Amino acid sequence: MHTFQDPLRHALTSHAHSEAVVCGDVRQDFATTIDRCQRLAAGLRNLGLERRDRVAVVAQNCHRYIEAYLAIPAAGFVLVPLNSRHTDHELSYAAVDAGARILITDRPPSDLDSDFEHVVRIPDDYEALLDTPAEPFPDDVAETDLAGLFYTGGTTGAAKGVMLTHRNLIANTWSCFSWNKLARDDRYLVVAPLFHAAGSVAVLGSIWIGATQVIQPSFEPNNTLDLLESERITSTLLVPTMLAAASDVQLENPRNVSSLRMLSHGASPATMATLRRAVEAFPGVELVHLYGATEAAPLVTALPDEQLLLDTPLGRSCGAASMGVEIAILDQDDERMEADEIGEVGVRGPNIMQGYWGRPDDTEAALRSGWYHSGDVGRIDSDGHLFLVDRSKDMIVTGGENVYSTEVEDAIASHPAVAEVAVIGVPNERWGEAVHAVVVTRSPVDEAELIEHCRSTIAGYKVPKSMEISDQPLPKSSAGKILKRTLREPHWAGYETRIS
Amino acid sequence: MHTFQDPLRHALTSHAHSEAVVCGDVRQDFATTIDRCQRLAAGLRNLGLERRDRVAVVAQNCHRYIEAYLAIPAAGFVLVPLNSRHTDHELSYAAVDAGARILITDRPPSDLDSDFEHVVRIPDDYEALLDTPAEPFPDDVAETDLAGLFYTGGTTGAAKGVMLTHRNLIANTWSCFSWNKLARDDRYLVVAPLFHAAGSVAVLGSIWIGATQVIQPSFEPNNTLDLLESERITSTLLVPTMLAAASDVQLENPRNVSSLRMLSHGASPATMATLRRAVEAFPGVELVHLYGATEAAPLVTALPDEQLLLDTPLGRSCGAASMGVEIAILDQDDERMEADEIGEVGVRGPNIMQGYWGRPDDTEAALRSGWYHSGDVGRIDSDGHLFLVDRSKDMIVTGGENVYSTEVEDAIASHPAVAEVAVIGVPNERWGEAVHAVVVTRSPVDEAELIEHCRSTIAGYKVPKSMEISDQPLPKSSAGKILKRTLREPHWAGYETRIS
Repeated sequence: MHTFQDPLRHALTSHAHSEAVVCGDVRQDFATTIDRCQRLAAGLRNLGLERRDRVAVVAQNCHRYIEAYLAIPAAGFVLVPLNSRHTDHELSYAAVDAGARILITDRPPSDLDSDFEHVVRIPDDYEALLDTPAEPFPDDVAETDLAGLFYTGGTTGAAKGVMLTHRNLIANTWSCFSWNKLARDDRYLVVAPLFHAAGSVAVLGSIWIGATQVIQPSFEPNNTLDLLESERITSTLLVPTMLAAASDVQLENPRNVSSLRMLSHGASPATMATLRRAVEAFPGVELVHLYGATEAAPLVTALPDEQLLLDTPLGRSCGAASMGVEIAILDQDDERMEADEIGEVGVRGPNIMQGYWGRPDDTEAALRSGWYHSGDVGRIDSDGHLFLVDRSKDMIVTGGENVYSTEVEDAIASHPAVAEVAVIGVPNERWGEAVHAVVVTRSPVDEAELIEHCRSTIAGYKVPKSMEISDQPLPKSSAGKILKRTLREPHWAGYETRIS
Repeated sequence: MHTFQDPLRHALTSHAHSEAVVCGDVRQDFATTIDRCQRLAAGLRNLGLERRDRVAVVAQNCHRYIEAYLAIPAAGFVLVPLNSRHTDHELSYAAVDAGARILITDRPPSDLDSDFEHVVRIPDDYEALLDTPAEPFPDDVAETDLAGLFYTGGTTGAAKGVMLTHRNLIANTWSCFSWNKLARDDRYLVVAPLFHAAGSVAVLGSIWIGATQVIQPSFEPNNTLDLLESERITSTLLVPTMLAAASDVQLENPRNVSSLRMLSHGASPATMATLRRAVEAFPGVELVHLYGATEAAPLVTALPDEQLLLDTPLGRSCGAASMGVEIAILDQDDERMEADEIGEVGVRGPNIMQGYWGRPDDTEAALRSGWYHSGDVGRIDSDGHLFLVDRSKDMIVTGGENVYSTEVEDAIASHPAVAEVAVIGVPNERWGEAVHAVVVTRSPVDEAELIEHCRSTIAGYKVPKSMEISDQPLPKSSAGKILKRTLREPHWAGYETRIS
């Protein structure tokens, strides 16, 4: 019975004149923000957009992104936020897959534009589109309607549009209130990218409760610290690479961050070293470790007061299931396993996606037996704390981004000199994991050439940070499957594993 | 997609071995509590109870009440908590109206028992019933299923069973997390009666998040303060009379209540004097003013940090709508009124009841135009804060209990010496409002006799605390309606009105 319209309506009646968003010189109250959302919705209708039509957004964080995030689903359209780090090639794939009719973007004109009926460029086209009277949102948007398609992965094969309904995202919003303690007087910094669940996780909750969202277009540690100080930020979510960089800068050149009460982090593994530096740099601040997946809208587990637990066994945990979310360790037959047994992490609850857009087979595989299969391997102790030990999906999490090995392997293998390739994640202090390729060549080629070859088709963060070139065949199982575990072992030996 | 089963399942996987309930010498962890819930459900099935059958509970607060509150809906039955202050006459009316087959009670045998197929007496019958293997809850209980019938009022006419579904009560639970900040390490004191929404408001949330519920069988200020100290209570809800008594005792004979972070209060008006004394008695503790109705499951608005607002205009407000709940001021045509205009308070959201059991006309009247009509008159300022100014329903709120004037008038009018009677609420420092009767006699009768006459049919808290006996007719409108406002005026002159 709740949709995106509810927090907007609530904001209008409960805190219309409080500060809703701050972005650079722009300061808007809730009434203004919601009026702009309604004018954006009217403008999109004037372009011929109809119910359930998809609207892609490719942009840096800004107040207009927040408006699009809220208005598109509230108006009964479907939001498709795309990764602004992706190449045109990757963006085009997702845009066509989603059948998006309109693109809202802050990028300069490019070939990508030809995939859309209309391109609304930020800021000029966008402001022109809003130059229309606000209209109420339609009153028949249902909680089971699709609110957004959230793409994971990049090119063909790996790229899948995660279908989240209004109810999925509202359920996540409620779930987060069980640990984020967001209140009317909070000032939340939006710094992780809004196209990611990590960036948008608090948008609906902030609107609903009346907290102010201060928006940083993209992360830069000195600017982030300046904002923490000048805007009296109380709470934020950083991905581990941001947390590490912000801690280093704060220790070197401390700002007054006395307003800060909570630093949550998630989206990729944080090393113990990063967490200890964060505690040193931000004493007295609550650290909260989050584990989630786009398919779970995104929150699965939370570990509040992590700063008190670092020297205990719980310090290696992702915490317990967030309220409303259920987790279990599943065996190969999808049966629940006992406490402390190791298997695949399954998740269910009202936050779990409806499936992958246009991919019934992938949907069936991911949601079989009524559980979302996370692809992560772990155990749950007798107190319900989840510990991850490995990933069953062939995926690398680097700086908060998921990289599917197959996609990078495809990019490298398309070079004529390459005979075999395996891509794995190796430990990296800055990125958590780094993309590493083991390449078997058939003719001489150097690393620089292969890297350059990758750059033409996949996003920069997916391009290997290191490479081994060899003329020996890769280790394989008797069935001929490449033994990635064997390739990973020397890199991870003696390393403290703490995946999340 | 959530039912009562979800918090129970969550507790089992997330915090099975933490302390769930404390009641006297009994200390149970979540695993034990949930095992007992499942055995209670199995025991009720063994008595022949079938899905959607009603089970009445008449008991003081205890750990078994918490179990019944959880197990009955989780098993697909319908909970009917009845007011333990009611007379057998009143209880019998509700039991028959609800068609309850089983009574769970801590009362000694009485005529009331004959209204039920089975009476499960606490503790012996109850423990015998649990002497059966636990069975899983049925897997087809739906969120739209009825979870409970919550009776408002007492005898015929006024007594109505408020139908709340699983979803209604779960929605309220989520909503409360937006202000109660309940966490795993909280220790919540259950002291308001569990048959009231004020007593049971935190049961589901505590189970879900893993907080401990410490249960006091019934309020006594010295015992309450001793429990606050010895059990290191962090949070509770008191009705204003309890808050006043606890503050007085704490000022006289202070206990160490340093663990306490929040005192919420609701269910009836608190005077400024009570609030100021509470601030004095419990310095540094957050006061939260709650406004609700059984029909809203129950929370409607909350005013957090009230202790900081007492000397501001907001100190007279009930706060803003709790998250997920929508409020509006409605005119006589149920149209929304503007900010600061005075009209009836309307409420909507997933927390609002399905209607009154077996009373389609009352349901239609209460829920017309898609709003629950609270019967309270108020205004909402431009920042969404609700201020109550009067009640449009002819009802008195005394010590947290709702008393319908008509019910008391019927009891008095049934005495042969009474010609006319009007019952009103008058200000009272201890009870907020006190029940006051204005009686016109046809033959000599004294106050004591009329009071005694009332006691035989209605609960003690409904019996007038004061009476005026007169031989002059009551003031009436040209249509012959008694002008209660005229009767109330001299009592309320110069009094600080603060209804909630």
